[in-house]
Amino acid sequence: MTQTPLLLALDLTGTFAFGLNGALTAVRAVRLDLVGVLTLGVVTALGGGIVRDVLIDSLPPATFNALGYLGVAAAGALLAFFLSLPLERFTALITVFDAVGLSVFCVTGASKALEFGLDGVQAVLLGAITAVGGGTMRDVLIRRVPTVLSSDFYVVPALVGAAVTVVAERAGIYGLASALVAAAVCFVIRMLGLRFNLYVPSTPRRTSRRGEEASEDGGE
Amino acid sequence: MTQTPLLLALDLTGTFAFGLNGALTAVRAVRLDLVGVLTLGVVTALGGGIVRDVLIDSLPPATFNALGYLGVAAAGALLAFFLSLPLERFTALITVFDAVGLSVFCVTGASKALEFGLDGVQAVLLGAITAVGGGTMRDVLIRRVPTVLSSDFYVVPALVGAAVTVVAERAGIYGLASALVAAAVCFVIRMLGLRFNLYVPSTPRRTSRRGEEASEDGGE
Amino acid sequence: MTQTPLLLALDLTGTFAFGLNGALTAVRAVRLDLVGVLTLGVVTALGGGIVRDVLIDSLPPATFNALGYLGVAAAGALLAFFLSLPLERFTALITVFDAVGLSVFCVTGASKALEFGLDGVQAVLLGAITAVGGGTMRDVLIRRVPTVLSSDFYVVPALVGAAVTVVAERAGIYGLASALVAAAVCFVIRMLGLRFNLYVPSTPRRTSRRGEEASEDGGE
Repeated sequence: MTQTPLLLALDLTGTFAFGLNGALTAVRAVRLDLVGVLTLGVVTALGGGIVRDVLIDSLPPATFNALGYLGVAAAGALLAFFLSLPLERFTALITVFDAVGLSVFCVTGASKALEFGLDGVQAVLLGAITAVGGGTMRDVLIRRVPTVLSSDFYVVPALVGAAVTVVAERAGIYGLASALVAAAVCFVIRMLGLRFNLYVPSTPRRTSRRGEEASEDGGE
Repeated sequence: MTQTPLLLALDLTGTFAFGLNGALTAVRAVRLDLVGVLTLGVVTALGGGIVRDVLIDSLPPATFNALGYLGVAAAGALLAFFLSLPLERFTALITVFDAVGLSVFCVTGASKALEFGLDGVQAVLLGAITAVGGGTMRDVLIRRVPTVLSSDFYVVPALVGAAVTVVAERAGIYGLASALVAAAVCFVIRMLGLRFNLYVPSTPRRTSRRGEEASEDGGE
Repeated sequence: MTQTPLLLALDLTGTFAFGLNGALTAVRAVRLDLVGVLTLGVVTALGGGIVRDVLIDSLPPATFNALGYLGVAAAGALLAFFLSLPLERFTALITVFDAVGLSVFCVTGASKALEFGLDGVQAVLLGAITAVGGGTMRDVLIRRVPTVLSSDFYVVPALVGAAVTVVAERAGIYGLASALVAAAVCFVIRMLGLRFNLYVPSTPRRTSRRGEEASEDGGE
């Protein structure tokens, strides 16, 4: 499927939102300079797609090689650098844009993996990696246990969106319409998750029997 | 060398053990949800091989692309999620299975690197990376200084097993028998290391002269 | 451009300095064994170039595949392991050598990216990644927020050196002379930055309104 203007617009919107939100999260967690904020915004926005492209051997990575994506991600990060405080009033709006990014990335990620000949299960995983990989890299760089591993209802919508994409492709009906449906499914699940505080079951909170291991991280 | 049933069985055993042990370690260190436990189990089991395959340009990575490996790693992680407490009684057994994984991975990793035309030293390093890379990635994700860097007698057996593999290959006698010998050498060294508390010499424990650097991490 | 003896000598000097300085930094921050110190020295010295080679699809990575680079990086790390305390007297000298590494790596990194057909902006970024990527990986492994993201005047000289390289190449005058000029520009900026305490503007220090996020990392 060639990139339609609508999908491209959604993809760039998502990239901008990821750059902005990724940089905001970083700025709120650690003290960074301009270089750090730009780096973390761009890593959040492009990191997942880069990992996918490395794994499917589509190198150099597409978004890294396209000035538009780099520029849009950097613009989001710059905005976060200069306006991190006033932007706190728009947290709800930014979360919605971020969900747009999640939704588009899991669909385009899964679709690209299929194009490169990967099987269905792998394509679903790569769709999710495209969507959440960048944020995971950012969390590692700012020394947080990645939120997607511990508490956020963030991976599940991405997996579902990617799965819908793979099913549509296998059924021979993948195109702009079904891509939008898959993205919409992911978006709705993400929004419902936020609204109703859905979560994936966790391991039981442990009492600290192994002091050396549990002490610092036990409360995460 | 084509994959024999015996080597395949050992490889899958190791993958299962790494998935189980990797997820158990993660569960004991931080609070994770099901997505996180699955992710960390699979990363521990497949991460080292994926790094090796990226570096030797064998993409998409073999184990990532094989449903069997993904499934076995995920099964180990699931077991860890649901049975982390009762499994503590079987720590010794799990350590033995984990050593099987270490032993098979360093041999198959070195052997694959040679197949792809890398030199001996690089093949030894890639064998060790295959064996310990996944656990290192897990430790980074759960925010621990990787134990292989600081205290575990874990890399040395992997290096020796990989070296025996390379020597056998160079001597023209690499096959199932020598692969098993190389894995057995690694396994025995690992077990002796655990039994006799062997370790690699460390840097001296520093008194905290550089407060800002040494304070938090100094006691690791 | 073929590798001239002069550039090769500078490149190996930089690799040695990165291996030494990377291992010293690691040793001063966490307790490591010999395996850990060697690993972190080699990762610091070769990590940036490996990331670049993965992204431009030049695999296996050049320096990983060249015994000379591996050996020189390991030699630097060994020196750090055995002489970390006496070496503290030579901090100023090591910083100068480290700046040589930074300067050569950003130039050779950008130049190699252009050779592999990447565009100017990407080549500048890859030059900087070559120069600072290894140190960033080391910081992640020893659980520090990478200093290049937060406070060091380290990325800017690398970006400028890489940019001079790209401009020279585009003007058709890239060769040994212009490579040395580009490296010298980076070196001088780095030295001026250290001498006059230059820095990139940071985000404002936040008062801890979000306790759970800002508490531990807020003082970084």
